[in-house]
Amino acid sequence: MSTGKTAIIAGSGGLPALLAAGLDAVGVPFVIAQLDGYAMDNPAGWPVEPFVVERLALLFDRLDDLGVERVVFAGAVQRPAIDPERIDPRTAALLPRLLPAFQAGDDALLRAVIGLFEDAGFAVVGAADLIPSLTASAGVIGAVAPRDQDIADAARASEIVAHMGPLDVGQGAVVARGLCLAIETLPGTAAMIDFVRAARTRFPAPEGGEGVLFKAPKPTQDLRVDMPAIGPDTITAAQAAGLSGIAIAAGGVMIIERARTVELADAAGIALWAVAP
Amino acid sequence: MSTGKTAIIAGSGGLPALLAAGLDAVGVPFVIAQLDGYAMDNPAGWPVEPFVVERLALLFDRLDDLGVERVVFAGAVQRPAIDPERIDPRTAALLPRLLPAFQAGDDALLRAVIGLFEDAGFAVVGAADLIPSLTASAGVIGAVAPRDQDIADAARASEIVAHMGPLDVGQGAVVARGLCLAIETLPGTAAMIDFVRAARTRFPAPEGGEGVLFKAPKPTQDLRVDMPAIGPDTITAAQAAGLSGIAIAAGGVMIIERARTVELADAAGIALWAVAP
Repeated sequence: MSTGKTAIIAGSGGLPALLAAGLDAVGVPFVIAQLDGYAMDNPAGWPVEPFVVERLALLFDRLDDLGVERVVFAGAVQRPAIDPERIDPRTAALLPRLLPAFQAGDDALLRAVIGLFEDAGFAVVGAADLIPSLTASAGVIGAVAPRDQDIADAARASEIVAHMGPLDVGQGAVVARGLCLAIETLPGTAAMIDFVRAARTRFPAPEGGEGVLFKAPKPTQDLRVDMPAIGPDTITAAQAAGLSGIAIAAGGVMIIERARTVELADAAGIALWAVAP
Repeated sequence: MSTGKTAIIAGSGGLPALLAAGLDAVGVPFVIAQLDGYAMDNPAGWPVEPFVVERLALLFDRLDDLGVERVVFAGAVQRPAIDPERIDPRTAALLPRLLPAFQAGDDALLRAVIGLFEDAGFAVVGAADLIPSLTASAGVIGAVAPRDQDIADAARASEIVAHMGPLDVGQGAVVARGLCLAIETLPGTAAMIDFVRAARTRFPAPEGGEGVLFKAPKPTQDLRVDMPAIGPDTITAAQAAGLSGIAIAAGGVMIIERARTVELADAAGIALWAVAP
């Protein structure tokens, strides 16, 4: 892990604290900037500095004063609303660049935000660059090995996701016995798995489950700020949907709360493995 | 419309009676063979001859005796179970051909069934071949014209469906403001639209609806026996999902109960139009 004082730009969920613990463990100095309206899970009570998006320029000043050299975005953020009354003049000067991106979709908005941090002199790094163990290398991750049918279903799902790549639509699919039950779209992975659960009332899974969730990044995703992730909730949902396996792209999908995730998968008899891209 | 005594092989729903009325109107003689376990909508009380799939060879004899030259499959059929005790010896001789197809998926099974009818000397024609007005030519079908955003959303959905073609997965997609909300998979169109309805609790549609359902046949579909269809239920579901338009491939998607379908679309303010493939 490289050094250099690091700011964790925090949304919600468990990833910011995970990064904080990881940086702390190897002695890299860091601060946490918490986006207003969100709260990271913070059982260890790391100190956080709140900031509002309408005063982004002031955050840049503050991070500079603290000697921050690089930033890492961590945690879930919905597309924020902007309150015009709160905008300070220097942040207002950034708006001509941000507003068109707001119209153009999540990827474009993220690219614009990254650009603003970079122009302010910060390196933008990915969570998985800081802590490589957040992703998995190819192989079985849990205690349950995929069966031949799981491997075949993951290959079919991978083919579908790869084929969808140029469309910039999905980063996941569910396939059971070669049949495509669902393709991930805007509503996301959780909604897709829940769709399979609901559909399974008409296409019941056999004892022990059947079908594989496959996740991989889209070719257009900037993995520094928008890497797909699975976690304990993914396992619980997959179990409810009667799936027998979860396959992720090696090096391309984060496992949040890895120990708990693997424990749940093992207990559910769900194979969890990573495949080489 | 060509002539020649025609057998309507009927599953459930409104299409068999629609075909009967259409053939009757132009003086083409026909019989209706109703698959056991299903009941076509039959408000006009057309006479039907029941048959069981286990005695398919006897149906062939009966249709021959009646002078039938061609058959048309009409109405919804789930993959039937076969009761071995009911199989007559001559139908048993057909099983070596049917059983592998049962393992290989719906398309393969349909192809095998078509092949059996053709080998027995019957021409297999499509419902839309008999009654071209079941499909639509390019243009606005209802009273509501698509807005520019609807046309753009339909184009994006069409691009997605066309791109999916080689995967043999979906025959429909829902796009709103350029964002793909859903792609049709095994559970079908109704399940896909209901997914959008459920997701819309998080991505609400504006007043008047937003987003387009696009449907088109897969390149692998045999349109004689497996043409996609929309109908009154599609409109009701699309309205519940907050959609503003439904676009279908011209000549490639049947409109069941067209008058009622158009009436519901008009009342809901939903644009219904066909686009050239």
